[in-house]
This record gives sequence, C-alpha cells and structure tokens, in this order.
Amino acid sequence: MAHPLSPLWSARSIAVVGASDRPGALGRLPVEFLQRYGFAGAIHPVRPDGAEVLGLPSYPSVRACPDGVDLAMILVAADKVPAAVDDCVSAGVPAAIVCASGFAETSDEGAALQDEVVAKARAGGLRLVGPNCIGSVGVANRQVTSFSPLFAGEQTRLVDGPLGFVSQSGALGYGAVSLAFERGLGLGWVVNTGNGADVTALEAMAAVAAEPGCLGLLGYVETLADGDALRRVAASGVPVALLKAGRSDAGQRAAASHTGALAAGDRVVDAALRQLGIARAHDVDELLDFGDAFVQPRRPAGPRVAVVTTSGGSGILAADEVDATGLQLAELAATTVRELDAIVPAYGATANPVDVTAAVMSRPELFDRAPDALVDDAGVDLVVACFCVLTGTDVDAVVASLARAAERSGKPVLAARTGADHLAPGAAAALRAAGIPTYPTPARAVRAAAALHRTVECDVSDRHAGVSRRKRHTQREGAGVPGAGIGERELKVLLAEAGLPVPIGRLATDGADAAAAVTEVGGRAVLKAVVAGLTHKSEAGGVALDVTPADAAQVYDRLAALGGDVLVEELVGGGVEALVGVAASPLGPVLTVGVGGVLTELLNDVALRLLPVGRADVEQLVDETRLGTLLSGVRGAAPSDRDALVDLVLDIAALVETWPAGFELDLNPVSVTGHGVRILDAAYIGPEAP
Amino acid sequence: MAHPLSPLWSARSIAVVGASDRPGALGRLPVEFLQRYGFAGAIHPVRPDGAEVLGLPSYPSVRACPDGVDLAMILVAADKVPAAVDDCVSAGVPAAIVCASGFAETSDEGAALQDEVVAKARAGGLRLVGPNCIGSVGVANRQVTSFSPLFAGEQTRLVDGPLGFVSQSGALGYGAVSLAFERGLGLGWVVNTGNGADVTALEAMAAVAAEPGCLGLLGYVETLADGDALRRVAASGVPVALLKAGRSDAGQRAAASHTGALAAGDRVVDAALRQLGIARAHDVDELLDFGDAFVQPRRPAGPRVAVVTTSGGSGILAADEVDATGLQLAELAATTVRELDAIVPAYGATANPVDVTAAVMSRPELFDRAPDALVDDAGVDLVVACFCVLTGTDVDAVVASLARAAERSGKPVLAARTGADHLAPGAAAALRAAGIPTYPTPARAVRAAAALHRTVECDVSDRHAGVSRRKRHTQREGAGVPGAGIGERELKVLLAEAGLPVPIGRLATDGADAAAAVTEVGGRAVLKAVVAGLTHKSEAGGVALDVTPADAAQVYDRLAALGGDVLVEELVGGGVEALVGVAASPLGPVLTVGVGGVLTELLNDVALRLLPVGRADVEQLVDETRLGTLLSGVRGAAPSDRDALVDLVLDIAALVETWPAGFELDLNPVSVTGHGVRILDAAYIGPEAP
Repeated sequence: MAHPLSPLWSARSIAVVGASDRPGALGRLPVEFLQRYGFAGAIHPVRPDGAEVLGLPSYPSVRACPDGVDLAMILVAADKVPAAVDDCVSAGVPAAIVCASGFAETSDEGAALQDEVVAKARAGGLRLVGPNCIGSVGVANRQVTSFSPLFAGEQTRLVDGPLGFVSQSGALGYGAVSLAFERGLGLGWVVNTGNGADVTALEAMAAVAAEPGCLGLLGYVETLADGDALRRVAASGVPVALLKAGRSDAGQRAAASHTGALAAGDRVVDAALRQLGIARAHDVDELLDFGDAFVQPRRPAGPRVAVVTTSGGSGILAADEVDATGLQLAELAATTVRELDAIVPAYGATANPVDVTAAVMSRPELFDRAPDALVDDAGVDLVVACFCVLTGTDVDAVVASLARAAERSGKPVLAARTGADHLAPGAAAALRAAGIPTYPTPARAVRAAAALHRTVECDVSDRHAGVSRRKRHTQREGAGVPGAGIGERELKVLLAEAGLPVPIGRLATDGADAAAAVTEVGGRAVLKAVVAGLTHKSEAGGVALDVTPADAAQVYDRLAALGGDVLVEELVGGGVEALVGVAASPLGPVLTVGVGGVLTELLNDVALRLLPVGRADVEQLVDETRLGTLLSGVRGAAPSDRDALVDLVLDIAALVETWPAGFELDLNPVSVTGHGVRILDAAYIGPEAP
Repeated sequence: MAHPLSPLWSARSIAVVGASDRPGALGRLPVEFLQRYGFAGAIHPVRPDGAEVLGLPSYPSVRACPDGVDLAMILVAADKVPAAVDDCVSAGVPAAIVCASGFAETSDEGAALQDEVVAKARAGGLRLVGPNCIGSVGVANRQVTSFSPLFAGEQTRLVDGPLGFVSQSGALGYGAVSLAFERGLGLGWVVNTGNGADVTALEAMAAVAAEPGCLGLLGYVETLADGDALRRVAASGVPVALLKAGRSDAGQRAAASHTGALAAGDRVVDAALRQLGIARAHDVDELLDFGDAFVQPRRPAGPRVAVVTTSGGSGILAADEVDATGLQLAELAATTVRELDAIVPAYGATANPVDVTAAVMSRPELFDRAPDALVDDAGVDLVVACFCVLTGTDVDAVVASLARAAERSGKPVLAARTGADHLAPGAAAALRAAGIPTYPTPARAVRAAAALHRTVECDVSDRHAGVSRRKRHTQREGAGVPGAGIGERELKVLLAEAGLPVPIGRLATDGADAAAAVTEVGGRAVLKAVVAGLTHKSEAGGVALDVTPADAAQVYDRLAALGGDVLVEELVGGGVEALVGVAASPLGPVLTVGVGGVLTELLNDVALRLLPVGRADVEQLVDETRLGTLLSGVRGAAPSDRDALVDLVLDIAALVETWPAGFELDLNPVSVTGHGVRILDAAYIGPEAP
C-alpha cells in the first residue's frame, strides 16, 4: 500500500477547492500549473457556482467530484477551511493541502481555528499539510500542486532527480527549488509544510525517503521538536542534510541548573544532528551543495581526502577546508607518489594536495593518469579535483578521466571549478552527467565531501541505541523515581540504592551529632546546608570543607542558620571534577558531560547527546571536551579513573529512562580520582506542572 | 609623478619579450590579447629574428624598441630571463613582468637564479613582478598583459569597475577574475604577483589603492610576512578584503614558550587583520561578495542592521548571521514600528527582522514605504532586504524603493535574492546599477555587510599607534635590553628597573641564607630553582610554595640539587593569574594577553595584537578572553585590579619596543590582586643566532 502522504507527489485525482478562472487569482494558479506542466491525472476544480475553470468542469463540493479524489488542494480563506475539511472527510480524501494564512502564525483565534481544523482532519482520517503553505510538487508525476510564482516563470522547467526537498518556509523553500533547478539539481519530490499543524517537515521527509528511487533528502526547518521523528528520518537509509534556522535563539531558555543552561537551544540541535549522522547546512547554497554530493551514487569509506589541482592556490584552499571540516588529507603511498612524479613538472607537487600544474592541462594524456593513481591508493577514500579557468577544449578529457576513476574505484570524486561558466558552457552538464558533483570553489567542494562523509560515518544501527545500555539498565531495574521536591540527601540515597557511588554521610541533628557524624565518616568531612531552592551552595556560604570533629558543632550552627538541614559527608579530595547531567530538550532528554566544579561556568565546556547512548558515545563525549585532557592528567598529575566515570554516565543514562519527561538532573561536581568516582553534589528539578 | 608600478595597468608602450606568431604559443597570447581588447598604446614584440608578430614589426631587444617602453612582459624561459632583465635595465624600462616558472618554486638552483634576477633589477632601477606569474590587466587602458586562457574565451569581456584585485596565485586569481566579470563585478586593476620576488602582493595592493577612482581592494595571498606593508594597505583609505590561504598551517612552528605557541600561525593573521580593519574572506565567492559591498559608495556608521524580508525564513537566516558575525539587530523605534504596522499584514512581523510577507509584493505601493521607514530610523545603520522568488513584475518597484532609501539616507542597503536568475533576468543588473549589492542568500548578504562594517569600525589613525603608548614609553627610556641567556632573577631585576612590579626577593647562597631571605620577604616565601633551560619549573618540582624560615634550609637543598640557583621571593597569594607575552611573528612582534597560571594550557585562551597598541586595544584584549570575566570576580570573588594589569601591559609593550626583533617574553603568571599586580614568573628567549 502506498504511503498515506504519497498523494502529495503521486496523486491520480486532484480537487482544487476554491478554484477560479480569473487570471492572476490564487485559485487559478494550481489548475494552470497542473495543465502547463502536463499532469496526466484528473483535475477537479471545486467551486459553488459550477462555472468552468480553464476549460474544466467544476463541482460544488469534493464529495461531488467523480473517480475518488486522492489529494485536495484547499485555497479558500481561513474561515472557510473547516467546511472544506469536512467536505474532504466526507469524500474520503486521504490528504489535503491547506494554503490559507490566518491560523496559528497570526493570533490566538487563528491558533484555535487551526486546532479545530486539525481535530476534524484527524477524526476523519484526513492527513493535512499546512496551513499557511504553498503546496507540493511531484516531478515524475508532472504534479505542481503549488501556487509559487516560480511555476509562472516563462523559462521555468521541472528538473527531475533522486532528491527530496521539504521546507517549512514556502517562499524561501520555492526560492531554493528555483536555485536547485537552475543549477541542474533535480528535486523529484518537494513539500512545503507551512505551520506543520498535522504533517510536520520531518514526517514529510520520512515519507519521501520511503519512495523508490529516492537517494537523498534536503530539509529547511525552523523548529525541531520531535526526537523520534528526527531519528526516523536519520534511519531512513538515505543521506540527509538539514538547514536549521534560528541558531541565535540559543540560550533564550530560562534554566534552573547548569545542565539546563548548557544544554539549551542550538547546542542540542548541533549535537543531535551530529549524533544521528545528519549533515548540517548553514545556508541555502550549502544545502544544495550537499544535495549535489548526495545524488552521485558513491559513498566514502572514510575521511581521507586526496586533492588534485591545476593550481597551487586551489590546493591550499582545499587543504584548509579539509582541516576545518575534520576530514583528513590522505597520506599518499610511495607507489602513488612515484606514478605522480612521472606526470607532474618540477614546479608542481606530488604530495597531497597534488598540484599537477596548469601546464598539464595542455597534455590531457598526462592529466588522465592522475585521478586513477589517486583512487587506486588504498589510503584514499575520496578525491577532490580543483580546476580554475577550465576552457572548452579541456573539458572532455577531464570529465572522462574523473568519471572513469570514480566508476572503476567506487570512490566519490568531487570537483571544484573556480571560473566562469561561459568559458566551457557544456562543462557543468557533462560533469553532472558523469556523476562528478562540481562546485564553484575548492572549499565548497570539500564541505560537500564532509557532508557526504557525515552521513556515512555512523552506521544506522548505532543511531538507535547501544547494546551495553540495555544490559546495564537491567541491572538497575529496582531503582526509584525522584519526587518533585527531592532534596540533595534523599536524591543521593536514591542514587546509592541504584548502585551509584555517593559519599558516605548522613544528616546531623545538632552540633554534637555533627561532630559524631564527622568521626563516623573518617574524621574529616564536608558539611553542607541542604536548603530547598538553594542551588548555588558554595556562593551562598553553604559548604564547609575539611571539617574536623572539633570544628563540627560551630560549623553546624552556621549552616543550620541558613534555614535547612545540615549534611555531613566524607571528604573526597584531589579528583578531577566532572559535570554529568540530563536535561529536557524539545528533542527529548539530553545527556551532558563535561568539565565541572569551579571551572563549570568559566569553561562552559560540555558535550551533549540525545539519550539513549552507548559506551562509544560516552567515550566520545568525554573526548569532545577538555575533560578528556584533565582525566589523562595535566601538569604532572596522575591519570584519573576514566572508566569509572564512563560507567557512571552509562548507569545514569539507564537510570533516568523510566523518569518522567521534562526533569533536570545535575551531578556537579562528580569527583574522578585515581581509583573510582564519587557524586559530590546532586540536584534534581522535576518537570513543571502542566 | 605616476607610481612606479602604474605601468602594470596604465602602460603606454609595452615590449613583449619572447613574442611569437605561432598560434597557441605563450609568446603570442599577450600580443593577441592586447590587440583584441583594444589597447591603444604601442605594442613592441621582441624576438631575435625580427620576424613580424600578428602584423607588428619586432625588435631584437627592448633597447632597440622605439618611443620609451614603460612595461616589459618577459615570456622567455627561466635561463634566458637574466639577459632579458639586463636588456630592460639598459633600456631604462621602469617595470617588467617575468612569467616563466623554474625559479624559487622549483629548486635551490631556481631560487639562486631568482635572487640573481632580482639583484640585477634592483641595481638597475627596474621593478619586477613575478617570476612564475600570469601578468596584469588595466581595464580602462584595455591592457591585457596576461596570458591567462580567460582572455581567449569567446564570450570574455573586460568589466570595468572601481575595485582592484591582486592575487599571488595566477590560475586561481584569473579564475576569480572570470567569476567577478561573470557576476558583473568590475575589476579595474588586476595584478598577479606569482613568487613576489621583488613586488609583493601587498605592495601591488597599496599601489592600486593610490589610483584615482579606486574604491576598494581585494587580495588573495598565501604568505603575509610584512607587517608594515600590511599596515600601509590598511591605511590606504579604501576598504580592503583578503583571502589568506594556508590557515591549517597554524601551530606548525616549534615554540619555546607558551606565548610563542599561542601566538603562532593563523591566529596572528586573524588578529592582525581584525586590528587593522581588513575584512577576512574565507573563500573565493566570499571575497567577491565583499567586493560587491565595497563598490557601492555608502558606509555604515555602526553595526545595527535592519532586516526586511518577504519571507519569514529569510528573516531568520539573516538574523542568525547577524548574530554569528557580531553585527547587531537594530532595535526599531516605536514610530518605525507604527509605520510598518500600516503596511504589514497580521501574519507578518513588524519587529526586526521585519517580515512584510510575500503578499505585499503584489502591492508595490505598500512595500515602497518599508525601506524608507527603516533608513529613517536613527537606530539603523544599514538595511538588508531579503527576497525569494523575485519575478520580473516585482523588480522595478523593488529596485526603485531600495535605491531611493539608500540614496536619501546615505545608509548602505544590501539585498538577498534567493531565487533563479531567469525569473527576473534584468534584476541583477538593475540592482547593481542602483548601488544595491545583491547576494544569493540572506547569510551571504549579512556577511558582506559585516565585512563592510569591519573596514570602517577602526578609524585609520588608530591603525598606527596609540598616543598613550608614546607617552608611557618616554617614561621608561632608561630601561635595558636583556642579554641572550638572561635568567629569571636578572630578567626580574631588569623589569623592576623599568618600573614594573615584580615580587621582593633575592638569590640565596645556602640553606641558612635562604632562611634569612624568607624572613626578609615577610616570613612566608616562594622558593624557585633557577636553572638554565628549565622553563616548566612546577612540573619539574622546581617551585616550593609557602616556605617558612623553619623549612627554608631543607627546601633550599632540594631545589639547589636541580643544578642552578635558588631564588627566594615574597609569597603573593589570591590573585587572578594572567599571561602577558610578546612573541615574534612574520608580521612583527605580537602582544599576547589571556588566562595564565595553571589554566594556561587547559583553556588556551589568549588574544593577540600586533605591536604597537594603545589602551583601548589592551582593554579589548582583556575582554576577548575569559580573563575579563575572571578579573571581574567569579563565584563570589572580589574584583581584581584590572587597571593595574592594563598599565602593566602598556608598560611591557613600550619597554620591548627597543628590544631586538625575534625575541619571546613570557610573563606567566602575572598575579592580579584586589590592589595591584605582580609578575610572578618571567622568561626571555632571545632571537636565534642568524
């Protein structure tokens, strides 16, 4: 059975609700475009008066249309949308596109209307795209169910290709489509989701990925609020690139704990996309650049790039970007260098980046050997070939050499061509036809190569969970869930019951009891004021270090005066201080690991992952921050027990799985000593009441 | 008198040495191009046999050419270049372009040949461009003294404009020229400097800037090794953008001190360009984007950007980039918002970014008011207008509105047009003619705006020196210059004599003397082993803190056993630890200020400036790192004496002015307490012997 959203691009019968015959009217454009671009299915204008639209008979309702409408395009104003949706439901239409503005993007009343419309659709089994959107396109089906002015352009042609493009924004989305078509990048499936009231951009992307022939997905999104949907897109089996707008909103969220503040906004998005193997584009042209890399069928087995160029300058620019993107310049084998020595003049370079020099362009039989030599090197995963002023006479030989090397080896070959199109008018099309994605500059080619690598570096099975996680979780099943107002002491008891390492200690009842407790924990202790709402204890004078039985009573009195309990704990000294936290995010709970203790705010150095995680994720988290360096021992210090910290993090990740959504857990500092680890401070902030 | 390099673009009589009549020969191309593009001056082919070249008589030598050659283009092979240079010298030619490869880029022999050629030229008063270069272009003069294949392109046209472009790389440089011409960006002066053996890229840039009508400079460079030349370019009075390749070389330099390691490579380039108000481009298309912004005549008075868009998505992308580039989103005045309220539909936005919505495009009389409203707001320094699918019918009205607003207000207006060219084929030219630089995406428009702002944010007088520096320097004139092997104690004496705050202390002769010295400095002291070559004392156990007279003898014995002297100094506790250093760089001495002490390597958080600096520079240096936060007091700590640190840094900057080039001075830590500052550790590494 076809996907319920497939009528967005493969409809057989389309009702245009609110169709008009008046030139320039919104209600005329989709009918005009469906006819103009050659849609072969049925087009049914729907309008109350039964008048013809562009020569087609109209119907008073969707229900009255013949032969089973499978997509309704609703172009009426917002206040008429509920009735149109009712009509679609009663006609049994599976999917509708609602174009009107005036919903949640406008006002509270609009939001209420939107909720009403979505409720009707869901109750009636109708999937609803929009409102406040411009529609969809299915190129193979010649289906333009959109009113974008792009399709009115005299020279506009649909360009088919194995790439899907989904955009929350309509105007920007179809602007990007026009740029893709202009560069010859085919987009077989285009959807604009607008307000995303029912069908979200992520859901539409997953649906496109399921289409036979889809080789990649591009998306423009402004909100990312569904971790599971994002995982489904990532696991769809095709490379995915997202342009996520709204980066600068980072940190706008009021957060009650360090972990909350550190895990806010764009940082979560960045970590999640990285973790899920989704390439992140930072601009529209970069998103299309990534698409060009996705539609060629080869994938790199690793990050090792060989750069071959006819200009030393291009080679340096490419090498700079290899470094900046985290790819690696391949170390060429001695046999490769020997082969290149036979080609390259003395003023060129046979080390990577390989500069064959512009002179070689006048001897195609020499250049011809270079791409082969590079792809045949086992230490090379992909090749970036950089040209400058590529003229008509050079093109055929270059294209043939690059295409043969790519095809023979199965390694991706990307090209940069830093020169005007008119110098070799056929080059762009020839390179595209040969499966060599081509960019205007070396840096853009390398960034596209990095995006391609990003989509293959984590394999899909890793994107779900780690086996080790499940196993550890089983061991901890008895552990409880913290109550909303849980204090530090009770939280530590809960953690201890779950098998996690907290300091020995107890609450003291008075000064004499405090002295006794100090003796019980070994004669040297930390005393802490446990006061509801006091999260930054040290700054408030609520912590006393290295208390002996002799000082205990006096310290007790001072801390008790802050208005809460006094906790006496063993003194744990000399460890590296880590932060381990879990915070809520729109994409689900986020694990945060980094430098803790007094350096927390100063360094602001944490790494993030969506839960669940496996051991490899946690090892990476530690290494992404300076915590990894600190644990290995700096300035002559002995190394700390990194394994114990990793175990602790995995245990925490497993423990919180059963906790209700929306909490924050902040373990800071966690002291990592030479042997073992101890949670010195712990705070829990429960989900806010709804 | 004309600039000695002006024949590179305004020659009246050109000798082509090694000219050929054979189609496709290198020696034929410049003659062919000079004729084809309409050079009106004299063209004199020079070749031994006197044969005609393209219908022109040839001469056996430059000396034999009539009417005073003012530019020689030397196309002979490397081994024949010395004789050709001799010929030019004896003919009194002021400038020559040497094209051949086979010089310093190839081998040691080639380097020797290059030195020989440069020596001949300099002795004979001949300025030499190249070798290993492709030549120059002066568009107004119709002068193509270049053999780039670009000029053989059937559709190639020279595009004049008020921008100069200088490139070290030939192939990449002319590739960029072809892309500039293709987008309609005129480059009136183009120079390729190749090996830069005599005329460097920076010198050529300064010469172009001196041409009447030059409004901006673009440069591609691979080496930046002359701080004074860079300052001259920055102070030339026109905006400058540089694409500096070779970023990833950072950190390759072996460095003897922290300061040396922290001030290496690309970090210096980045700091120097920022300091001098030169915009840094990271790719070829970005360099040209900046050029588009430079050629419009208006300059922003500040960083406050108003974004106006027909698509919410574009607005968000623009706002993201405003944030990323360090510009600011303007806070619109209430009157501006009221005016916009009258234009914008309910589903748009009248806050910045202003979303007038796509619907407004169909009512040009409404859109027309938006640019005026924004430029009339005193809180707006420049406007970025973002469009998506801009169609033919929209263009005229949009261009008129934007142009009028820009011209009336004198504020720059930049545009983004995220849509295919063919939808409004005249738009690019119309926007350009109206002085509205236009980019394919909002982010690119904003980055160009940031580049424009960068070139005006520091005024040219600041680019040289600070008055305060000179004054302070006078006060310190008696201070000495350290000797090559100076130890910590002698260096501190030298610093103290210059009026700088070092701890009280002295060398101890034995254990008993150490105890006496501890008493002299106040009863609590730091003891340090002073051993030649031992730079990381703490890690080597060479520092003992908080030594009392009672422990002094025992500690003395332990430290003396490390093989050097033992220094006894007063204990200075509790301050914020800063690093202050000066290191050598290819651009001259670099001042380094940042977080010091135990956090130095962990944070790697320093900021750099080329010397000399003024007080405002030093204040900025402090704020660019976490040192600023630390000094203001974190986690309840009292603020430290920031002014004393700034004074110290200015004194150091003044002191080292008379020191010989190539040294490293490393003051780390400098302890900044509540009142005052103290240099706790100091190391000097002299310039290496030549």
